[in-house]
Amino acid sequence: MNEIVSMNREKRLIKIIQEVFPESKDFIGDDAALVKFNSPDLVFALDNLIESVHYDADLFSPYDIGWKALAVNISDLAAMASKPLYFLVGLAIAESTLPKSIEDWVREFYSGIYDCAKAYGFPKLIGGDITKAIVKTAISITVIGEARSGNQFLRSSARSGDKLCVTGKFGNSGFFLKEYLQSKKINSDKDYQLRPKPRLEEALKIKAHRGALMDTSDGLAQALLEIAEQSKVDLIFDSGLIPKDSHIALQEALYGGEDYELLGSFAEVPEGFIQIGEVKDFSQKPMVMDLATNKALSFTGLYEHF
Amino acid sequence: MNEIVSMNREKRLIKIIQEVFPESKDFIGDDAALVKFNSPDLVFALDNLIESVHYDADLFSPYDIGWKALAVNISDLAAMASKPLYFLVGLAIAESTLPKSIEDWVREFYSGIYDCAKAYGFPKLIGGDITKAIVKTAISITVIGEARSGNQFLRSSARSGDKLCVTGKFGNSGFFLKEYLQSKKINSDKDYQLRPKPRLEEALKIKAHRGALMDTSDGLAQALLEIAEQSKVDLIFDSGLIPKDSHIALQEALYGGEDYELLGSFAEVPEGFIQIGEVKDFSQKPMVMDLATNKALSFTGLYEHF
Repeated sequence: MNEIVSMNREKRLIKIIQEVFPESKDFIGDDAALVKFNSPDLVFALDNLIESVHYDADLFSPYDIGWKALAVNISDLAAMASKPLYFLVGLAIAESTLPKSIEDWVREFYSGIYDCAKAYGFPKLIGGDITKAIVKTAISITVIGEARSGNQFLRSSARSGDKLCVTGKFGNSGFFLKEYLQSKKINSDKDYQLRPKPRLEEALKIKAHRGALMDTSDGLAQALLEIAEQSKVDLIFDSGLIPKDSHIALQEALYGGEDYELLGSFAEVPEGFIQIGEVKDFSQKPMVMDLATNKALSFTGLYEHF
Repeated sequence: MNEIVSMNREKRLIKIIQEVFPESKDFIGDDAALVKFNSPDLVFALDNLIESVHYDADLFSPYDIGWKALAVNISDLAAMASKPLYFLVGLAIAESTLPKSIEDWVREFYSGIYDCAKAYGFPKLIGGDITKAIVKTAISITVIGEARSGNQFLRSSARSGDKLCVTGKFGNSGFFLKEYLQSKKINSDKDYQLRPKPRLEEALKIKAHRGALMDTSDGLAQALLEIAEQSKVDLIFDSGLIPKDSHIALQEALYGGEDYELLGSFAEVPEGFIQIGEVKDFSQKPMVMDLATNKALSFTGLYEHF
């Protein structure tokens, strides 16, 4: 039976950063950092979107790139049940690869950001930097959200007896990308990949005062393993209950990645979520068990950032 | 006589962004964004540091890159008289160009950031993102600072009668870079370019409650023109009073760039600053006049981000 002992390269690099910044250990390792102020508490998150790593300029319009760059950050706030307030945009443009003038590209890119902001509580753009890049464009957005009072929606907050729940459905984004990369085919799942819709509404409606919560941007399997590991619990789920379209294979739903859904564990199933399993105390080491196959999930096949 | 009417490409691009985000107009265009909360008010800034645009990987060690990436951001907070509290690091690593293992590079890079943080009030690392990049490494740091109560240290806060003041000395960073680019010569001005020392201490000591303030990262000439334009005033200065070493030409001190000094205008000269001129009401259009040459400064020769 597999145990959660291996560590991928990203984790190793983050561990190095935690060693260099011992005072920051508590802030790092969740979807966003919770910072306590008198009023209100704030949540900060930063996500990169890098050309030819996170998006293909042949496939994504400047509008799509802008939308997705902000959406993936808002998904990190949703994963903390935090309402977006502000954001800053770091943009380094490789002009040589742009399909249009830099002015047109910038206008379309920021229009995508604007419309995404408008769709998600209208956080305010308060700054950023716009510079040249060589060869490939790089985007880095920082979002600032209002923390839920007494926020306990961390990856480490799952407790034995909780119900394991998810929003939405899984695998469409990965399915689209696989067909595109294999044969440049643009299928009808395109928008799951190009214009992800983070589950902010569902997150803000959660009535519970405690629960584990994270987004599934690196895949549902990775999110399950992460919550088991950080909360030091076993997660017992039924892969037959994972919501997915009929054309999506189970492996795709588990490992496809870039599904901007939420995975959580709560005493009661919140509105907009469905239950796929439950949380138990761990016996030897925290693990994630699929009741349908009677097998434990392994790290094999997880999305690797490096 | 030259007037401040031309607009460089970066300004045109920022104007597009302001058009797309009309609600954000007041936040954009200064060193950092001032956001009002109950207590304390916060200041946010984001600066990119891009390989082969802002630094040469043959010249900068990973430690230097880390130091500079944070230092240029702290300079933006200094330019708002704001004490650094927190920061987030967006890092996209092009592994193929690294001179050592990615783990060693990451450790040295973050050690440079750590030491810079420690030297400047020890703001806390609270998050970020670490991902792959193709071809060139891209860094984007967001800093969050505590706003001075009743902060009025904007680029638009200069008033007729103010004394025009600067910290430090000018031109060393540009002089170093020129010699390096021309002949790979490493002269003794190296640290001005590789390990800039932002003027946070001087900024936090300012006793005035009002004054224009900005950093001179894009060159002293650009900063003078920016304050004249944003404050709608004339700036009359004596280029003979600009502090510089004897091996630095006046043109270098004015246009060299990457001097992380402060330019400000105050009723009284603050500790750590020296006076180089004064602020007057403008007659036709805001301009910057050099008494030593009886000529107005022009945009020609300014650092261009694109």
